[in-house]
Amino acid sequence: MANQTDLQPAPSKSDRSNLIPFSSRLRDGRALALDVWTIFSAANLPADCINLGQGYMNFAPPKWITDAAEEALNTVAPNHYSHPRGRIRLREALKVFYSPQLNRDLDVESEILVTSGANEGQYSVFTAFLENGDEVIMFEPFFDQYLPSVTFNGGRPVYVPLHPPKDTITHPTSNDWTIDVEELRRAVTPKTKMIIVNTPHNPVGKVFTKSELESIAAIAEEFNLLVMADEVYDCLVFDGKEHVRIANLPGMWDRTVTVGSAGKSFAATGWRIGWLIAPKSIIQPTLAASTRIVFCTNSPLQEAAASGLEQAKERNFFETQNEEYAERRAILCDAFDKLGLKYTLPEGSYFILLDISGVDFPLDYPFPESVLGRGRDFRACWFIANEIGVSSIPVSEFYCEEHANIGEAYGRFAFCKDTDTLRAAAERLTALKKYLK
Amino acid sequence: MANQTDLQPAPSKSDRSNLIPFSSRLRDGRALALDVWTIFSAANLPADCINLGQGYMNFAPPKWITDAAEEALNTVAPNHYSHPRGRIRLREALKVFYSPQLNRDLDVESEILVTSGANEGQYSVFTAFLENGDEVIMFEPFFDQYLPSVTFNGGRPVYVPLHPPKDTITHPTSNDWTIDVEELRRAVTPKTKMIIVNTPHNPVGKVFTKSELESIAAIAEEFNLLVMADEVYDCLVFDGKEHVRIANLPGMWDRTVTVGSAGKSFAATGWRIGWLIAPKSIIQPTLAASTRIVFCTNSPLQEAAASGLEQAKERNFFETQNEEYAERRAILCDAFDKLGLKYTLPEGSYFILLDISGVDFPLDYPFPESVLGRGRDFRACWFIANEIGVSSIPVSEFYCEEHANIGEAYGRFAFCKDTDTLRAAAERLTALKKYLK
Repeated sequence: MANQTDLQPAPSKSDRSNLIPFSSRLRDGRALALDVWTIFSAANLPADCINLGQGYMNFAPPKWITDAAEEALNTVAPNHYSHPRGRIRLREALKVFYSPQLNRDLDVESEILVTSGANEGQYSVFTAFLENGDEVIMFEPFFDQYLPSVTFNGGRPVYVPLHPPKDTITHPTSNDWTIDVEELRRAVTPKTKMIIVNTPHNPVGKVFTKSELESIAAIAEEFNLLVMADEVYDCLVFDGKEHVRIANLPGMWDRTVTVGSAGKSFAATGWRIGWLIAPKSIIQPTLAASTRIVFCTNSPLQEAAASGLEQAKERNFFETQNEEYAERRAILCDAFDKLGLKYTLPEGSYFILLDISGVDFPLDYPFPESVLGRGRDFRACWFIANEIGVSSIPVSEFYCEEHANIGEAYGRFAFCKDTDTLRAAAERLTALKKYLK
Repeated sequence: MANQTDLQPAPSKSDRSNLIPFSSRLRDGRALALDVWTIFSAANLPADCINLGQGYMNFAPPKWITDAAEEALNTVAPNHYSHPRGRIRLREALKVFYSPQLNRDLDVESEILVTSGANEGQYSVFTAFLENGDEVIMFEPFFDQYLPSVTFNGGRPVYVPLHPPKDTITHPTSNDWTIDVEELRRAVTPKTKMIIVNTPHNPVGKVFTKSELESIAAIAEEFNLLVMADEVYDCLVFDGKEHVRIANLPGMWDRTVTVGSAGKSFAATGWRIGWLIAPKSIIQPTLAASTRIVFCTNSPLQEAAASGLEQAKERNFFETQNEEYAERRAILCDAFDKLGLKYTLPEGSYFILLDISGVDFPLDYPFPESVLGRGRDFRACWFIANEIGVSSIPVSEFYCEEHANIGEAYGRFAFCKDTDTLRAAAERLTALKKYLK
């Protein structure tokens, strides 16, 4: 909560609006804390630091996709309001893309909703479904936006651990992060409304197995829970692993909202185009929420996202992109192997969790205030960024306060960067050797 | 609430998620009602109907502005996440644009926030400041999004009338819609948190005078209220009228958030780029809300909006655009004059309120269900759209249920269309003569 005092300075005559207090909902869920993205933003790090922190690409979306945006900009209608459900061209493209994967003929009017990024889509689901005091179960570590998005809408986050790989495993993969189904069951109370299942998982990279998803599905059915399937990394799954959609399991369509993202799919994180696929009973209340929150999503980039989905198959786009990401992953993994550092080989997403507990930084290193108040991983990542020149994200941020110590062992390194950049990072990382215990 | 039964069908085995109720917040504030925009959307009207309903342009933004979007699309960074505050180029452009108008040197880091349309910006202010039960005063008629945006965040809308022009005025202007300051004062309770001041006003077109704003400001100061100055039509003010910013009145900067829109300013309603200008004590909590709601706003169109602001002065853009809108306004007004119908000459915005109480439609006209359940204005506007071929928006939608009858006298006609279209609409409207009492 580093920034709170900064926000409510002592009242003075010249700034009387201090007296108008902000909402108590901002006092929960880290809403006003200085977030990890700001602390580790490029602006706060050495100018030549290689940024493997925040998960955006250092390359542009394919030209054949941006071409569609340019065409839209040169036409009248796609510069103006879209339908709050999303542009029909994009909804049609989503229907063609998802229908075979979900084994159903999706209805573009009632089962598909375009949102202003996956983030706003998820926020709208919380707005549409949560009552004050409703509980939302999330696996920990969790994508940090979930927490305030739930509390802003009156919900209460409940954490169920993903258990880290056992120490005896010398080369862990993301599949070695495991769930305990009985633990999940014990977390359910009469107030539980929803479970968030993030697969492939950020930051672990875990691709939940069919059997794991079946266990979660059984509990969702037993206790009549909504499932938010955050699958924004669904096009990034490696090593022949299968990405299973929980919406596809028997009985689950009716209670599942599947979340997707053009930003992740097409290297365009700044376009803010996401989507939700779900039955009408979920889409319609969510549309009512989203319509009031943003009214509609930007039009030109919806046209571009549609074009991406329309042409992906003939261009073999996702297969090629997947191979490129596997190559990027290998460059970083090789670097970590050379250092003899343990890491979790991710089966999906574009993140690697590196065990940084053995990085031996000087205790009197000139850390900034924002880092000193946090876990050991904040200091380790800060040290690596400033001394080695490669930035990453400390993983305790993805844990609730009580369990932050588990995350302190890890730094999250993003490999959504071109191979030259990753090779340069790998080269720099060799210098970490002398700081290892 | 026409759609509610449709949303929660009787539970059946095959759709068990029916049992998961949506949030009670959707039961207030018309959230699930079939909204006027859907009822009067082009899809529901004859194909050749001239659309003067929803307020978007039938022309594209200027080429010199879309060029900047294209340049952004061909660069790496503006395809990826922006800072949640907005891109620095746009914040700098807003600083240059607004600082002289607000007589202060705006700080791009703490006093300017880019949002995903003005709508999301306003929603974020409500999220940031409202406690459950807080009251928000709005002048009625009001922009219909305010109501659910307030109730979704736990607030309670309180309505203070804009009194329609006296019957004795034969050629009313929007200035003949008046506020009663004592009525405003009586509306304030210990729960009042905020007043929304929409100037130029949608749908009335009223440009609040300095003296009116001073009265409102005095009450805001006396009761320590936030003021949301929705000024998205600030670049459209006619007849030499002065648009006064309430934030500029003595003592008001500290308690006012001024709302602007690239969509309205640059004929790009589908870009979803808006902004808030306010002191740090308002921007910082609002940033915390917006960061969780949408994370950030789309990047390429922020670059375009920045380019628009940067070049507007040298191109004399706003002056020229204003003259074009004045010409558009004149075309519709002439048509109404020829019909002998009374209307409110708007001093700002791009809407004209036409008195449609004298339109004598057949009682047995085949109106759809969605229109029959509503005020007389819904039937009159439907009849005009279908028989005359010009669509508009019934104004009772902009009133709370108790006062909807006041709005029933009016249809809102948008003149944000090219002159050829408006001339064609004027030509068609001559046929309304035979349906006048």
